[in-house]
Amino acid sequence: MIRGLTRAGLGNIESNEQYITNAAKYGFQSVDLNPLSLIEEVGQEQAKHLLESNQVIIGSSDLTVDWRTTDEQFREGLQSLVQMAEAATSLNCYSCCTYILPSTDQPAASFMAAATRRLRLCADILDAYGIRLGLEFVGCHHLRTQWKNPFIWSVEDTLDWIETIHAPNVGLLVDSYHWHTNGLAIEEVLNLKKEQVVHVHINDAYDLPIEELLDYERLYPGEGVIDLQGFLKNLKAIGYTGVVSQEVLAPTPTLDSSELFAKSKAGFDSVFAKI
Amino acid sequence: MIRGLTRAGLGNIESNEQYITNAAKYGFQSVDLNPLSLIEEVGQEQAKHLLESNQVIIGSSDLTVDWRTTDEQFREGLQSLVQMAEAATSLNCYSCCTYILPSTDQPAASFMAAATRRLRLCADILDAYGIRLGLEFVGCHHLRTQWKNPFIWSVEDTLDWIETIHAPNVGLLVDSYHWHTNGLAIEEVLNLKKEQVVHVHINDAYDLPIEELLDYERLYPGEGVIDLQGFLKNLKAIGYTGVVSQEVLAPTPTLDSSELFAKSKAGFDSVFAKI
Amino acid sequence: MIRGLTRAGLGNIESNEQYITNAAKYGFQSVDLNPLSLIEEVGQEQAKHLLESNQVIIGSSDLTVDWRTTDEQFREGLQSLVQMAEAATSLNCYSCCTYILPSTDQPAASFMAAATRRLRLCADILDAYGIRLGLEFVGCHHLRTQWKNPFIWSVEDTLDWIETIHAPNVGLLVDSYHWHTNGLAIEEVLNLKKEQVVHVHINDAYDLPIEELLDYERLYPGEGVIDLQGFLKNLKAIGYTGVVSQEVLAPTPTLDSSELFAKSKAGFDSVFAKI
Amino acid sequence: MIRGLTRAGLGNIESNEQYITNAAKYGFQSVDLNPLSLIEEVGQEQAKHLLESNQVIIGSSDLTVDWRTTDEQFREGLQSLVQMAEAATSLNCYSCCTYILPSTDQPAASFMAAATRRLRLCADILDAYGIRLGLEFVGCHHLRTQWKNPFIWSVEDTLDWIETIHAPNVGLLVDSYHWHTNGLAIEEVLNLKKEQVVHVHINDAYDLPIEELLDYERLYPGEGVIDLQGFLKNLKAIGYTGVVSQEVLAPTPTLDSSELFAKSKAGFDSVFAKI
Repeated sequence: MIRGLTRAGLGNIESNEQYITNAAKYGFQSVDLNPLSLIEEVGQEQAKHLLESNQVIIGSSDLTVDWRTTDEQFREGLQSLVQMAEAATSLNCYSCCTYILPSTDQPAASFMAAATRRLRLCADILDAYGIRLGLEFVGCHHLRTQWKNPFIWSVEDTLDWIETIHAPNVGLLVDSYHWHTNGLAIEEVLNLKKEQVVHVHINDAYDLPIEELLDYERLYPGEGVIDLQGFLKNLKAIGYTGVVSQEVLAPTPTLDSSELFAKSKAGFDSVFAKI
Repeated sequence: MIRGLTRAGLGNIESNEQYITNAAKYGFQSVDLNPLSLIEEVGQEQAKHLLESNQVIIGSSDLTVDWRTTDEQFREGLQSLVQMAEAATSLNCYSCCTYILPSTDQPAASFMAAATRRLRLCADILDAYGIRLGLEFVGCHHLRTQWKNPFIWSVEDTLDWIETIHAPNVGLLVDSYHWHTNGLAIEEVLNLKKEQVVHVHINDAYDLPIEELLDYERLYPGEGVIDLQGFLKNLKAIGYTGVVSQEVLAPTPTLDSSELFAKSKAGFDSVFAKI
Repeated sequence: MIRGLTRAGLGNIESNEQYITNAAKYGFQSVDLNPLSLIEEVGQEQAKHLLESNQVIIGSSDLTVDWRTTDEQFREGLQSLVQMAEAATSLNCYSCCTYILPSTDQPAASFMAAATRRLRLCADILDAYGIRLGLEFVGCHHLRTQWKNPFIWSVEDTLDWIETIHAPNVGLLVDSYHWHTNGLAIEEVLNLKKEQVVHVHINDAYDLPIEELLDYERLYPGEGVIDLQGFLKNLKAIGYTGVVSQEVLAPTPTLDSSELFAKSKAGFDSVFAKI
Repeated sequence: MIRGLTRAGLGNIESNEQYITNAAKYGFQSVDLNPLSLIEEVGQEQAKHLLESNQVIIGSSDLTVDWRTTDEQFREGLQSLVQMAEAATSLNCYSCCTYILPSTDQPAASFMAAATRRLRLCADILDAYGIRLGLEFVGCHHLRTQWKNPFIWSVEDTLDWIETIHAPNVGLLVDSYHWHTNGLAIEEVLNLKKEQVVHVHINDAYDLPIEELLDYERLYPGEGVIDLQGFLKNLKAIGYTGVVSQEVLAPTPTLDSSELFAKSKAGFDSVFAKI
C-alpha cells in the first residue's frame, strides 16, 4: 500500500509545490490534489517534473462537479470535469473521489434519483479516461440529522447504490473514521472485495461513544482508539495495494506545517509498522 | 384513442372471457388484464380467438414482479415476468404498467436506489419483447403519509426518475385522478410529449378539496368534477392515440356487473363526445 | 415542419451572420450550424439577437467529436462537445447529428463495439443538456465499398444499433437521398415513429439506377426523381413537426450564393406546396 | 486456485452424479455443468447433497441462451436463463460463461450491435442473482475464416467489448489454448487484472505452428507445449483464486472414462506442482 496525504491535517501549505516536496521529505509517496489546479499553478511540464523528481504520485482527485444541487449547477461543472480528467491522466492519476453527506434538505427519494443520474454520467466520462470514481460514505451521527432528510451512510447502502449506478468503474472510498462511526468491526473490512475499493483515508478517533464523534474533530493515526493496524492489515489481506491517504479534519492546529508533516510521518510509521 | 376498461368499477366478473365479451358488447375496444392469466385460463388459441372475434385488444398488463420489497422477492418474480412478456407479445400487447406508492416504510433514499435498479431490469427485459413500461404516479394526499417516509408522487419527479432509469421504453401511466389530486391543471397535459405516455386511466373525483380525496373512493367518468373531456382533448392534441382505460376504485357497488358495464359505457359516451 | 438549411448547396457564404440573415430573407426558418462557432464569431448576445431578430432557429449542430478513430482522438473531442452543448442550449438548439459511413478500414466488429461505447457517452453527455443525438444512415452504394469492410447503411440496422446504444435521446437523421439510395419506398416513411426522427435532410437525386448515385452529386429539391412531396407528407403523417434542412452536396456551383438561396427557396416552395 | 473439470476430455459419463463423484474421487474440487440440468436430474435436495458430500462445487454454467442468431431465438432462451440463474444460486454457483466464435456468417457490424444488446441483458439478469458472466475469446486460426466475416478473437478486443457491454459483472473466460493460439506470451497473463477473470480453462497444444492448431484437437495439461505452470503461476500472481477447469476438446478417446479421469488427475498434478 502507498503512504499518502491529503491537505487535511497539514496546516497552512503555501503551494502544491510545497505540498509535494514536503510529502516526499517526510516519506510519503502520494498526495491527493486536483491535477488541474497543479497544472494551472506550475504548468504541465513542471507538474510532471515535480511529481517524478520527488517520486510522489497523485493519489486521488476530488470530483470537481456539483452533483448535490440542481441539474443546472451540475451541468456547469461538466466542463471542468473533462479538463480535470485530462489533467489527471496526463499526470497518471486514475482515481477521483467524492463524499456522500448522510442527510439532505432535498426530498431523499428524488435527490437519490437525481444523484444516481448525475454520478453515472460523471463515472462514464471518467471511464473514458480510465479513471475510477470512489464514493465515500460518511458515518458521523451528527451529520445524519444535520439536514432535513436522512440519506445514506452505511457501506451496504453505498455498495447497493453503486450497483444501481451500474458503471464498472465506481467503487468505495473507505475512510477509517466513517468505518468506525458506522460501528463496523475491523474484521468486516475482510468482507470487501479488492476491486470495490478505489481509495482509502485514515485518521483516528477520540475515545468517545461513536454517536458523539464529530466529523471535524479527528485525530492523527495512532493518537486515537481505531485499530488502524488491523484496518490496514485487512485491506492488505483482501489484496488492496493502492493509496492510503491521511485526512485529519480538525480545528486549526497550534503546530506549524513542518511539524504537522513530521507528526503525520510518525503516525504512519507507527500504524504501518508490522503490516 | 381507444376506449378501454380495467376490472376496477365493473363489480364481480366471473372470468376473463366474460370480461372480454362484455367489454365488446358495451362498446369498449380494450381490456387491461394479465395476458398470462388469460392464456392459462382458456389456452393460447382461445385467448387469441376471444380477442379477435370480439375485436378487443389487451390495453396493458400489470407488472407481475415485486419491485417494492427485497432483492430476493424481486428475483422470485423474474420468471413470471418473462412468461408474462411472452404471453403479452403472443397476444399483441406491448404495454405493461406499475404504480408508485407515494410513501414507504423503507428509508426513502435506499429504496429509490433499489427500485431504480429493479425497474431498469424489468424495463430491459420487457424491451427485448418490444413492450413498454408505464409508471403511474399516485397523487392521493392520504397515501403520502400512509407509510413512514415520503417517496414521489408528482409528474415531474416521475419523469425525472424515468430519466434516471434510462431505459428508452419507460414512460408514464397518466391517471386523471392522480393528475387531479396533484393539483395539475388540465392544460398542463399539453406539456407532456406523446412518447412519454405509455398508458392512460380515467375516472372521476368527488367535489372535495383535493387533499381529502381518497384513493378508493373514485367516481365513474362524468360523475365528478374532473374535466375529463379537456383531459382527453389535450391527450389527443399531443398526439396520443393509445388506450384510455377506466379504473374506478370504489367501494363494492350495489349494481350488478352488467349494469356497471352499461354505466361505464354511458360515462365514456359522455366524456368522449366532441373529442 | 420547419424549413431549414445547411450550408451544403449555398455556395460561398462569408459568415454565419450572412448565413442567418439570408436564410430569413429567403423564407427559411432554421439553419444547421455549430452554435459554438456562432458564439465565437459574434458573441453570445449578438448570436441570440441575430437568431431572434431574423426569427431563425438553429436546426441542428454537428457532433464535434471524432468517434470514428481512436479512443485518444475521441477523448480529445469531449471538451469541445461539452462546450458545444452549452452553446447549443444557450441558443435553444436541442439537436445534434452525425453520419455513419457505410464502410470502414477498421475491423467492422471491433469498430462497432468502440463506436457504440463512444456514441453512448456522447448521447449521455448531450442528454444532460436535453439535446438529442441523430444518427444519419448513408445509403450511397459507392461508399459501401469505399473502405475495406462493410459497416451499416440501412434504416433497420441503424434503429437496431440505436437500441443497442440504449440512450433514450438517440434517434435518426433521415435524409431523403439516403432513403432513396437504400431503395426504400416513400410509403415506408410511415413505418417510422415520430419520436425516432431527430432531424431531416432533403435533397434530390438524378434519374439513375440507385447503385450509380454518388454522394457528392445531389440535386436541389424538386430537380430530381425523389418524390419529396410524398416524403414530407409521410413525415407529417407520423407527426413529425421538426426541422427539414436542405443539404445539397454537389460540385461547386456556377451560381453565386444569393442565386443559390433563391434556388433553394424555389425548390422548397415547390416540394412544400400542398403539404 | 480450485482444480476443476468440464466434461470435455472425460469420455462417456453416464450422469451428472457420476461426473461429480468421479471428480471428487480423482481429486477435483469443481465441475462445470448446468445447475438446472443437475436439479432436473436428481432434485434440489440431492443436488445439494451430492455436491456437499463430495466437497465439489459447480465451477461455472454455460449461458443457456442463443445470443448468436435472431432476436426471436434469443427471447426464447430468456425463460431458461432465469431458471438456470435460480438453480445456480441455489447451488452456490456464481459464474456463467459463453464463447465468442471468431467469425460469423452475419454482417459483422450489425451482429456486434445485436450481440452487445443481448449479452448486456443476459449480464443484467445474471447480476440480479449475483452471477458473473465470462466471455471466452477463441483464438484458433481456422475458425477465424470458418464463416464469412471475421468477428473478434483477441483479448484486447474482448476487453474492449466488455467495456462496451458496460455491465459490472462481465469479464473473461481465459482458456490456455486460446491464449496460446492468439500468440500471447505467458508473461502477458500478468497484464490481466484479477477482477477481469471470471473463469479459467486449461488444456494443452500440439507442437505445431499456432496457425495450424485445431480447436478440436487439444491435449491434456502437461502433454503439449503450453507452459501451463507459468500460466497458472501468473494467474496466481495477479490474485486469481477461482476455478481452473480442464477442457480437452479432442476426438473420441480410446481410454474409458475412469482412465480419463485418472489421466486428468495426473496432468493437473503435474502442472499444479510447484504453484
